[in-house]
Amino acid sequence: MSVQERLTALGITLPDPSALALYRPAVRTRDLVYVSGQVAMRDGAVVHPGKLGDGVSVEQGREAARVCTINALGAASALLGSLEGVRVVRAVGYVASTPEFTDQSQVMNSASELLRDVLGEEQGVGARLALGVVSLPANSPVELELILETD
Amino acid sequence: MSVQERLTALGITLPDPSALALYRPAVRTRDLVYVSGQVAMRDGAVVHPGKLGDGVSVEQGREAARVCTINALGAASALLGSLEGVRVVRAVGYVASTPEFTDQSQVMNSASELLRDVLGEEQGVGARLALGVVSLPANSPVELELILETD
Amino acid sequence: MSVQERLTALGITLPDPSALALYRPAVRTRDLVYVSGQVAMRDGAVVHPGKLGDGVSVEQGREAARVCTINALGAASALLGSLEGVRVVRAVGYVASTPEFTDQSQVMNSASELLRDVLGEEQGVGARLALGVVSLPANSPVELELILETD
Repeated sequence: MSVQERLTALGITLPDPSALALYRPAVRTRDLVYVSGQVAMRDGAVVHPGKLGDGVSVEQGREAARVCTINALGAASALLGSLEGVRVVRAVGYVASTPEFTDQSQVMNSASELLRDVLGEEQGVGARLALGVVSLPANSPVELELILETD
Repeated sequence: MSVQERLTALGITLPDPSALALYRPAVRTRDLVYVSGQVAMRDGAVVHPGKLGDGVSVEQGREAARVCTINALGAASALLGSLEGVRVVRAVGYVASTPEFTDQSQVMNSASELLRDVLGEEQGVGARLALGVVSLPANSPVELELILETD
Repeated sequence: MSVQERLTALGITLPDPSALALYRPAVRTRDLVYVSGQVAMRDGAVVHPGKLGDGVSVEQGREAARVCTINALGAASALLGSLEGVRVVRAVGYVASTPEFTDQSQVMNSASELLRDVLGEEQGVGARLALGVVSLPANSPVELELILETD
């Protein structure tokens, strides 16, 4: 199945990246694509704003991580024209957390699952970090960063 | 205008990176340059130590981000000999924040503006992240990381 | 002295990376190896769980950073078969910290020292960041990330 067929089967339409003055949604250098940090913005509003451990549940954090991932794939797709053949090198989930919350991995799993479902077992699973940060732009509960390899 | 001419027009003299025992100010691998995290150190002291949301204003944070950027360009310049032709691949602003502060993007804009002013619209604007971290070495309000491409 | 001889002289046996469903311990793209974030897990338990500035001392944080480093080298070694000729491009220490703790560099020095001792002065010293994060998976006091170059 192609990446586009998988996206269609999952009912996902990739958003266009927002026009930005001072940074690019994604940058290519040789065969690597660096995607800018994506917050959980959908239709102009952050999904489940706030922090894990203080009002945002793990399930809500997982939904936010999914939104970030769709945004990141949209940024890469707009740059490359297509996501066919793309491989995940590194994915980082920055999870807005209280000092007590330590389940960042569970939140990040939602991003990893979607990357695998869209890009496939072989291409969609890369190196990863899950980190607890004190706060994020626009009060997003999650920010996702991707480095992808293209051929 | 060359990068050096832009630096001169902006009144910026790039500092020499400090001699360090256990890490390098910048490392080159093929055509990429990884610059070490730069705190807002100027003339041996941190500019506006503390946190955004607790005593450090957005304007002070922006000044600190500018100092970090000058230090990062200094580290890259010392390694490469010159910044002509250099392109920003990825810039990350780690902003020391309280849980309530969510304007990391505004602080980071100051770094993005300077990179654009020094390297130009085409070369100076890359992928970006702005993150809120709980604290930074030397109580710096900002730490900046750059990945640059050279030819 | 070879890397393996140095490891033996230091009494270090590299652990096998854990089998993971949704990410890889390390990923190679061309001559770069991205190692996933490594927490301070040893024999199935986190060493000195908690935060710097709240119950975890600098000395304990340094021990944790050493454990993370051994895990990261284990992940790279399992992927590459050997660490001979490997060079550190970028090392990041994410240190779980209270807002008041600002000695992340001291904690990270322990990782930098071990990388130098294992890979040598020339190859083991790269670009670096030390950051204070609010919390980490499994309540680890430190998470370490490496990008290595291989030939």
